[in-house]
Amino acid sequence: MIRDLVIENRTRRRFHQEVAIELETLRELVDLARLSASFGNRQPLKYILSCEPQKNAVIFRCLIWAGALKDWPGPPEGERPSAYIIILGDTEIAKSFFCDHGITAQTILLGATERGLGGCMHDGIQRDELSRALGIPPRYEILLVVSLGKPKEKVVLETLEPGGDFNYWRDSDNVHHVPKRLLADIIIG
Amino acid sequence: MIRDLVIENRTRRRFHQEVAIELETLRELVDLARLSASFGNRQPLKYILSCEPQKNAVIFRCLIWAGALKDWPGPPEGERPSAYIIILGDTEIAKSFFCDHGITAQTILLGATERGLGGCMHDGIQRDELSRALGIPPRYEILLVVSLGKPKEKVVLETLEPGGDFNYWRDSDNVHHVPKRLLADIIIG
Repeated sequence: MIRDLVIENRTRRRFHQEVAIELETLRELVDLARLSASFGNRQPLKYILSCEPQKNAVIFRCLIWAGALKDWPGPPEGERPSAYIIILGDTEIAKSFFCDHGITAQTILLGATERGLGGCMHDGIQRDELSRALGIPPRYEILLVVSLGKPKEKVVLETLEPGGDFNYWRDSDNVHHVPKRLLADIIIG
Repeated sequence: MIRDLVIENRTRRRFHQEVAIELETLRELVDLARLSASFGNRQPLKYILSCEPQKNAVIFRCLIWAGALKDWPGPPEGERPSAYIIILGDTEIAKSFFCDHGITAQTILLGATERGLGGCMHDGIQRDELSRALGIPPRYEILLVVSLGKPKEKVVLETLEPGGDFNYWRDSDNVHHVPKRLLADIIIG
């Protein structure tokens, strides 16, 4: 059931870093993205894959982690992602990417969840630094980075009342709490 | 397998209009959206549902269908969607919606596909007219419309060579052909 997969597919930020992800797995996940919808069928998205420690470390340094957790600079060594998929917009194919990257990032993460993996969509990226570090040509706009690994943290969903604080938070047992709006508050007609 | 669902989840534009979709089904699909990721966990998306002929007709008139099929103004009566989910951005919650609507539209369509339904993400919308016709308050930005129904058309995927024509097309048997880039052409590193 897709519902089970959607519920299991929580944003994950701490991983069993020692569990490697094969390049072939990343290719399978991008193939799911490839087979998904693209506005006007332009398919302007391109992908850079990483599952090697050195390249992973370069990407990790360019990511901003969990804006709502002010005292947490991101996962320490040992709990970092085992892999990344960088989603790029090819400006030689399109000038606007609509929300194609949302479509494909979600598809990639659902595919990862099915494989017992999990991850996070990062928009907080030091884009210039990442482009420079990986030698990404200027024709490619960095849209998102998807981090991937074997999840190490427990995530629980809670109710977000209208006007309440939408920020996620961690308790003293390192359980990650995510307030979610109720269905009645998001269906308005 | 999510891969089977992703492959089955093709953009559909012709439907068995006589097959109704229950309001409860739409609510279940929006619940999948609700349980999906949102940037910064802001959850600024709101939804309007429609599965009644009169409201459906209003929404249908505000949609631009299949830009690449120049001689086709959209599905005729009898092949139109049985339902719609309008995805709105609530500007009182956020000013930017990132690609949240891509995440949720894809999730909604995967859920619909699992139920034997299908549909289309519409960005080509006469937004002012739709807002006026449904009385949508100005605080809500219309991001996407997802049309839904029981699919009536056959869709086949083909290979899009680099530099080739990405436009989808229909053959004389009304089979819909969609060129897709190869994996080797979208993974660049």
